[in-house]
Amino acid sequence: MAKRKGKLFIVSAPSGSGKTTLCERLIKRMPHIVRSVSFTTRLPRKNEKDGRDYIFVTKKEFEKEIRRKNLLEWARNFGYYYGTPKDRVLKLLARGTDVILAIDVKGAMKVKRLCPKGIFIFILPPSMAELRNRLKRRKTDGYSEISKRMQAAIREFSYLPKYTYSVVNDNLEKATDKLEAIVIAERCKIR
Amino acid sequence: MAKRKGKLFIVSAPSGSGKTTLCERLIKRMPHIVRSVSFTTRLPRKNEKDGRDYIFVTKKEFEKEIRRKNLLEWARNFGYYYGTPKDRVLKLLARGTDVILAIDVKGAMKVKRLCPKGIFIFILPPSMAELRNRLKRRKTDGYSEISKRMQAAIREFSYLPKYTYSVVNDNLEKATDKLEAIVIAERCKIR
Repeated sequence: MAKRKGKLFIVSAPSGSGKTTLCERLIKRMPHIVRSVSFTTRLPRKNEKDGRDYIFVTKKEFEKEIRRKNLLEWARNFGYYYGTPKDRVLKLLARGTDVILAIDVKGAMKVKRLCPKGIFIFILPPSMAELRNRLKRRKTDGYSEISKRMQAAIREFSYLPKYTYSVVNDNLEKATDKLEAIVIAERCKIR
Repeated sequence: MAKRKGKLFIVSAPSGSGKTTLCERLIKRMPHIVRSVSFTTRLPRKNEKDGRDYIFVTKKEFEKEIRRKNLLEWARNFGYYYGTPKDRVLKLLARGTDVILAIDVKGAMKVKRLCPKGIFIFILPPSMAELRNRLKRRKTDGYSEISKRMQAAIREFSYLPKYTYSVVNDNLEKATDKLEAIVIAERCKIR
């Protein structure tokens, strides 16, 4: 029998919806899924670790990856580059490992064109008011930055119909349960 | 917002694959899903209860349901009628309740023509040898009956590609986890 190819899960959410935390919790529960760590040119936030949260690179290094065509998707948001290393993801999938990408909507739409069989999951905040609260609590962004992110969130919601699943992140434990269920169910899918 | 319609889950398996037990366990865990109880003209097995396992009816009563067109699907297997009451299932779905049908492959294919949006789940025994063992252990069927059921199982497996999901029932607890995950994931699906 041919070796089972890995499945590609793409998780998107507006900033502050908790996609990074959710994905980390999911991976702790499911050791057989690997998160692809993105490149970024923005500076690490407090508690962010190079190689775990992002691969922090310079603008020059990032632009070299673009030229090498080693990015599954990339974008420039709020003045910073973000991108998904292609080599590593394709290698993992070929080996039969499921891969999860926590990327923004624009990136997800690019991946969708390349990998239409990917499983696209949209994490929703319980409400817009709660999203604003979370951005405020994070204390990493100023007022105008929060406003910009709220505007971006509204634009991002319009992409919801392009996704396969939506998960409301009202409770971290329950939202992780749902993400886990989606991965288990997708593994039971008949090809 | 329009009321969410219920989802229809169709679970099929060869005799002895444990579909009835699995569905019961699933329903105990998920009170918001209802199992549709089928009509049958066969006699109750030991431990089977009228109205819970099947609605046990006479041939005459069953044929009246056929004439009334009150069956979502029906079939005659091993000389007995089996059928799914249509009224009740449609009422539950309209009310937003998820419904699970534990029916054989032929019945499932009839339901698929009527309800192509149903979620079709195939329960697989771990192996053919284990399927035979289970049928023997059940001690309700004689040798020739077991042989007939094994032949039927082989025919039924050919319908696997028509299903959405497959779940191997090698371990009752794990197989129930998978069924539950499929229901949770389907509830997260974006329409």
